[in-house]
Amino acid sequence: MEGPIRTSETDVQDMMLDMGERARRAAKQLASTTSEIRTAALTAMASSLLAAQQEVLDENAKDIEAAQAKGLSAAMIDRLRLTPERVEAICKSVTDIAKLADPVGQTTANWTVPSGLNISRVLTPLGVIGIIYEARPNVTADAAALCLRSGNAVILRAGSESLKSAKAIADALRQGLAKTGLDPDILQLVNTPDRAAVGEMLTGLSGQIDVIVPRGGKGLVERVQAEARIPVIGHLEGLCHIYVDKDADLQKAIDICVNAKMRRTGICGAAETLLIDRACAQAMLPAIAAALQDAGCELRGDKDTQTLASDILPATPEDWRTEYLDAIIAIAVVDGLPGAIDHIASYGTGHTEAIVTENDKTADDFLQSVDAAIVMRNASTQFADGGEFGMGAEIGIATGRIHARGPVGAEQLTVFKYVVRGDGQTRD
Amino acid sequence: MEGPIRTSETDVQDMMLDMGERARRAAKQLASTTSEIRTAALTAMASSLLAAQQEVLDENAKDIEAAQAKGLSAAMIDRLRLTPERVEAICKSVTDIAKLADPVGQTTANWTVPSGLNISRVLTPLGVIGIIYEARPNVTADAAALCLRSGNAVILRAGSESLKSAKAIADALRQGLAKTGLDPDILQLVNTPDRAAVGEMLTGLSGQIDVIVPRGGKGLVERVQAEARIPVIGHLEGLCHIYVDKDADLQKAIDICVNAKMRRTGICGAAETLLIDRACAQAMLPAIAAALQDAGCELRGDKDTQTLASDILPATPEDWRTEYLDAIIAIAVVDGLPGAIDHIASYGTGHTEAIVTENDKTADDFLQSVDAAIVMRNASTQFADGGEFGMGAEIGIATGRIHARGPVGAEQLTVFKYVVRGDGQTRD
Repeated sequence: MEGPIRTSETDVQDMMLDMGERARRAAKQLASTTSEIRTAALTAMASSLLAAQQEVLDENAKDIEAAQAKGLSAAMIDRLRLTPERVEAICKSVTDIAKLADPVGQTTANWTVPSGLNISRVLTPLGVIGIIYEARPNVTADAAALCLRSGNAVILRAGSESLKSAKAIADALRQGLAKTGLDPDILQLVNTPDRAAVGEMLTGLSGQIDVIVPRGGKGLVERVQAEARIPVIGHLEGLCHIYVDKDADLQKAIDICVNAKMRRTGICGAAETLLIDRACAQAMLPAIAAALQDAGCELRGDKDTQTLASDILPATPEDWRTEYLDAIIAIAVVDGLPGAIDHIASYGTGHTEAIVTENDKTADDFLQSVDAAIVMRNASTQFADGGEFGMGAEIGIATGRIHARGPVGAEQLTVFKYVVRGDGQTRD
Repeated sequence: MEGPIRTSETDVQDMMLDMGERARRAAKQLASTTSEIRTAALTAMASSLLAAQQEVLDENAKDIEAAQAKGLSAAMIDRLRLTPERVEAICKSVTDIAKLADPVGQTTANWTVPSGLNISRVLTPLGVIGIIYEARPNVTADAAALCLRSGNAVILRAGSESLKSAKAIADALRQGLAKTGLDPDILQLVNTPDRAAVGEMLTGLSGQIDVIVPRGGKGLVERVQAEARIPVIGHLEGLCHIYVDKDADLQKAIDICVNAKMRRTGICGAAETLLIDRACAQAMLPAIAAALQDAGCELRGDKDTQTLASDILPATPEDWRTEYLDAIIAIAVVDGLPGAIDHIASYGTGHTEAIVTENDKTADDFLQSVDAAIVMRNASTQFADGGEFGMGAEIGIATGRIHARGPVGAEQLTVFKYVVRGDGQTRD
């Protein structure tokens, strides 16, 4: 007996604190590197990952086997599964992020004040970012690459189902960092399925982690938001609306509604409620409803909707607040733009809201009045995505009201400092 | 007996929830106003406050009398005291804020992506801001004006010592809002000294208040940071350093050190530690030390400092981490720029850090490597102030790592949304 008996809880605490301190040191080293070194590191990470492809696939096979033994759903297993093509796509994503403009060091404002001081606002890394995610192994590489592009160290916590795959990917990426002469602790993965590690990230490491980004289902995000003692960037739900205005082009309305709802039903930018202007409901709703039904969508409508189109199930009040993430859409007839704005203010989750109209004035009123991270005119809500926004990738979508909203890319993982240049000024 | 007996705690809860809901409604109305209306409201608020000058002074006299009866310090009572000149200065500050550029609605980026969508990033108000402060009555008007300039509703919680003064000021400002046709609930003051109200702001109103700004001593800020379930923008300590480099101009070094320490010792931008390059310590320290002593400053130095200048008390390790807010400065001799950077990284609080040097390369290395909200070259740390930065006023200084750093003015009280304009685009 060489010392006191250590509990598993203490082990996890010690391990996480050690990771936090390593990340803090690595972030400090990283902050003094040039953009060229960070770009070289990203390129090296992509190469190392490609070279480790077989090992990654082998470890992924073990995750898949365990998932099948546990009886996980086919959709879940598909999300987990890696193939040579998928690994190559992950490498390409890292290479693409290497090509993005480096936000760190950019001057976003510069002015001179009456005292003669020159003031610049310069982007700097946030520091250490903690990312807690679930099954998709590609998040490991995307998140690590975006953090490095923005000069941040990262602590990743993968879901237990994908831990072996994530570990193999993280190990390969760390080799790329080491080859460039950077501290591999810029990227660390929590190598235990113990859920106490999440608790440590949310509370115990408040001095080591600067921001937490949760990526996953509602249960995960709710836990993170409730427990975190560290700022959280993320979103709980995407209850996105499409408002079809009386001045809509019918064909655009049909195309946008079908795409926004049915392209992929399980993503946060999928539309969940269709609002239609009473002034055009009779003329447009039957065609829109039929197109959605043809695409395999279940329709649940209010009384007005049910009288205007066929095969509409009755909507209950609960439907207005439900993120189906499935081939179901709720439909309400509203009294013009004010009715749409009120409905969205009552039930929206601040994610993405769209109007279909050819009327510039109505569109501008909607875009100005609706309070959401993303507001759209004549476009599918499924464009709510960092890649589609030209950010290369995204670490997630934010619906909070401070720091970042919408897709969170490299630039949103920075903050700024003021650089003040004087010539001996003292204050009166 | 008409109902259950209500406890005081329930009363405060109900009152605060009502205030939160009123603020939320007012913020919604405010978001749809134009910049011109917000400017007119600010001008009307300044006029109403000037018209209510006598009432404000009368209420302030009651606060002063109570403070004297409680035996508060002369410094505290001076901070609390209003005079006709001080009320006029407060009105002028509101008028100045009315003249500031309105950040709301500004487009900070615009680009078109390959799908043809045009994307704008547009500044929007944060929503409802909660401000918790202590004795200075002028904060009531400054904070209210900056919140209105940035399109936000505000709930103010003044210290119990200044509550009557704050109430009189807030009532006058609300009259100005009403005269402009705006909802006076844009500005609400918590009209009870009950500390339970603070608890409600920090936790109970997480659905109504978007950001909390604490302004006051360490005790208040620590409580807010520990308890808040709402994002906090603020700072705990300003342990600011001045590093005098071997390539410093001696006269600038003397002027800056004396000003940074002694102009006002009680503000967060006051210097607390002087770091001097070993290569110039013998040549420069005696003159800098003598100038500080002539200005009435107590000097506490490490061993090297004590051998180079006279009347230096020994510094203990605790001195490096002490924000004196008094006429005391700690002095350490360091090994050039790396020694200064290491010392600041160990003991700095991320507020304001300055270098005195004529060497451009050394200055740039310092400005790039030191991680703080504000980094300065050849200027007094006492310039760390929203007014001096050209922001008109400040609601506080932030040292956190997300959303805002440094002086928080109207622009830092906004967030953005993405406005996406398409022509019927659907996603592949």
